[in-house]
Amino acid sequence: MHPRGSQLLPWRTLLCTPVFLDESEAILINQPGMQTDPLPSWNEGPSKESILRFIEVVTTEGGAEFVPPLDRIAVFDNDGTLWSEKPFYFQLIFALDRVKTLAAQHPEWRDQQPFKAVLEDDLAAFLAGGTKAILDVLIATHGGNTTDEFEQIVLDWIASARHPRTGRLYTEMVFQPMLELLETLRANGFRTYIVSGGGIEFMRAWVEDVYGIPPEQVIGSSIETGFEMRDGSPVLVRIPKVDFVDDNEGKPVGIHRFIGRRPILAFGNSDGDHQMLQWTAAGGGARFMGLVHHTDAEREWAYDRESLVGRLDKALTEARERGWTVVDMVRDWRVVYPWEAV
Amino acid sequence: MHPRGSQLLPWRTLLCTPVFLDESEAILINQPGMQTDPLPSWNEGPSKESILRFIEVVTTEGGAEFVPPLDRIAVFDNDGTLWSEKPFYFQLIFALDRVKTLAAQHPEWRDQQPFKAVLEDDLAAFLAGGTKAILDVLIATHGGNTTDEFEQIVLDWIASARHPRTGRLYTEMVFQPMLELLETLRANGFRTYIVSGGGIEFMRAWVEDVYGIPPEQVIGSSIETGFEMRDGSPVLVRIPKVDFVDDNEGKPVGIHRFIGRRPILAFGNSDGDHQMLQWTAAGGGARFMGLVHHTDAEREWAYDRESLVGRLDKALTEARERGWTVVDMVRDWRVVYPWEAV
Repeated sequence: MHPRGSQLLPWRTLLCTPVFLDESEAILINQPGMQTDPLPSWNEGPSKESILRFIEVVTTEGGAEFVPPLDRIAVFDNDGTLWSEKPFYFQLIFALDRVKTLAAQHPEWRDQQPFKAVLEDDLAAFLAGGTKAILDVLIATHGGNTTDEFEQIVLDWIASARHPRTGRLYTEMVFQPMLELLETLRANGFRTYIVSGGGIEFMRAWVEDVYGIPPEQVIGSSIETGFEMRDGSPVLVRIPKVDFVDDNEGKPVGIHRFIGRRPILAFGNSDGDHQMLQWTAAGGGARFMGLVHHTDAEREWAYDRESLVGRLDKALTEARERGWTVVDMVRDWRVVYPWEAV
Repeated sequence: MHPRGSQLLPWRTLLCTPVFLDESEAILINQPGMQTDPLPSWNEGPSKESILRFIEVVTTEGGAEFVPPLDRIAVFDNDGTLWSEKPFYFQLIFALDRVKTLAAQHPEWRDQQPFKAVLEDDLAAFLAGGTKAILDVLIATHGGNTTDEFEQIVLDWIASARHPRTGRLYTEMVFQPMLELLETLRANGFRTYIVSGGGIEFMRAWVEDVYGIPPEQVIGSSIETGFEMRDGSPVLVRIPKVDFVDDNEGKPVGIHRFIGRRPILAFGNSDGDHQMLQWTAAGGGARFMGLVHHTDAEREWAYDRESLVGRLDKALTEARERGWTVVDMVRDWRVVYPWEAV
């Protein structure tokens, strides 16, 4: 599915590496004269330095800020942090595509907003409906199936749908520097989690192949799920009703619910990640708080305080006040997408 | 805290063993002439045989029913499966103790049921209030604190409270055969999860030390949690409102939500585990479904179809029809509690 899929799949076998790294492997970061750059797509500079310094101090046995492997929890937002999110969240594009697929079963949608606008490709009219329109579309397109059916629908879409600007598969629009960071963290005993406002089941269908993050390390928003017996066999049915919104205050709540430990590293890109960063920062010992700042209109997109999608305002202010790492895409990333890395 | 604590703590370091077992370790079960009995507290017989046979077939590389380590998910109920649950759920005893502690701050409880009954040690009057009385007490005693405060309250209680019949710490009233089973599964590449109707935060405070199960592998019932800034620092506050009931249909729902993979082994002891067993059984390939049948009035308790706490009726019928493993405590367990094992 993913162009680097065959390269990424071995990560499955690395998932539990942390605890069993022997000295020779753990020195990836700790070795002063290391041969290989673990983050080749990052330019030298303060962001790369702050990441490598953090990994070094928490993995240095006997050091004042050493953190045992089981507590090396790293959480990452997804939209805008691990992959792009413009012109708007890719999951919403999935939902709009899905409205068109389902339209034949819903003749009433032809005259009913926000579906009418979607079917007529009238994006302005759709967006005029605001949050309610988005929620209506998400609910109508994400419920009603069994969990197995929904997974297959997502897999089919993600294997074929193309981004309107790049023409690439959405799974190609992941950030090469962040893939390297995820891998470097895992090689240094971290467990990497996704903590996203996106749908938990939408992500779980593909993130293991693409990011090397297994389903049990994916936290996201969810609708309700019900258990039913159908023809004597149990199924889980997706009920079109919001259960949990894993955004803003929901992120530390979701982290606590799913992991039960406070992360020592958190990476986001928007105000939706602000509380997750605050929660991470408030723990004792060494901490790393990072933001991806979308400054690159040429290779990706440039937006921050005024953007509707991925607004970065309050968190950016606090990051600068408190010295969190703000990644400047133009300055810090030699490469943005994997296809540029060859 | 736990008498076997120092013995159990090394399990922390074993949590991720599965993936990295080399051939020489993985043969714990697979070796025909194995030197050490991995389940010394289990009597020879059909239950022990069925467990060992299952582990053997799913760990035999090249075998028809081999399961890769990442899919070796084992789920265990807690109350009545990993520790005792009589005279009633230990968490409810915690809640009743907590009513007495909090009574000074709630003078109104002296005249208000179900609190009045609890304060007067009138168990009959309390139980006459049924599920509502229990829920009222749980809500009144489990909310209002920060998550950190609640953890400390549980830790203090579990380190000191004593069971009314045995006089033992509650963490001593865990089942030695099940501790051995958890350890054997982990040594054979399984990840062991708790899936309990009990409170997720009540359990997470102590199960890592006692069972070797880390917080992120504990699934349970929960109340709501809110994020707040207090004096500039973020806290998570426990809101006295039920969020999720991880029992009956809730168990497969919780498994799907937290793990996102279907287990290949499930162990319970009551009808509250029925749907979890059905969900596990409905997957493809080798499966193990087990029930602890409390048949031992002498060493533990004897109860099943008529019991209010831990009723085992429909699940027992289905287990017998479908050939699931029903552990007969009298017949199958040489030892029940760790203190008998010496």
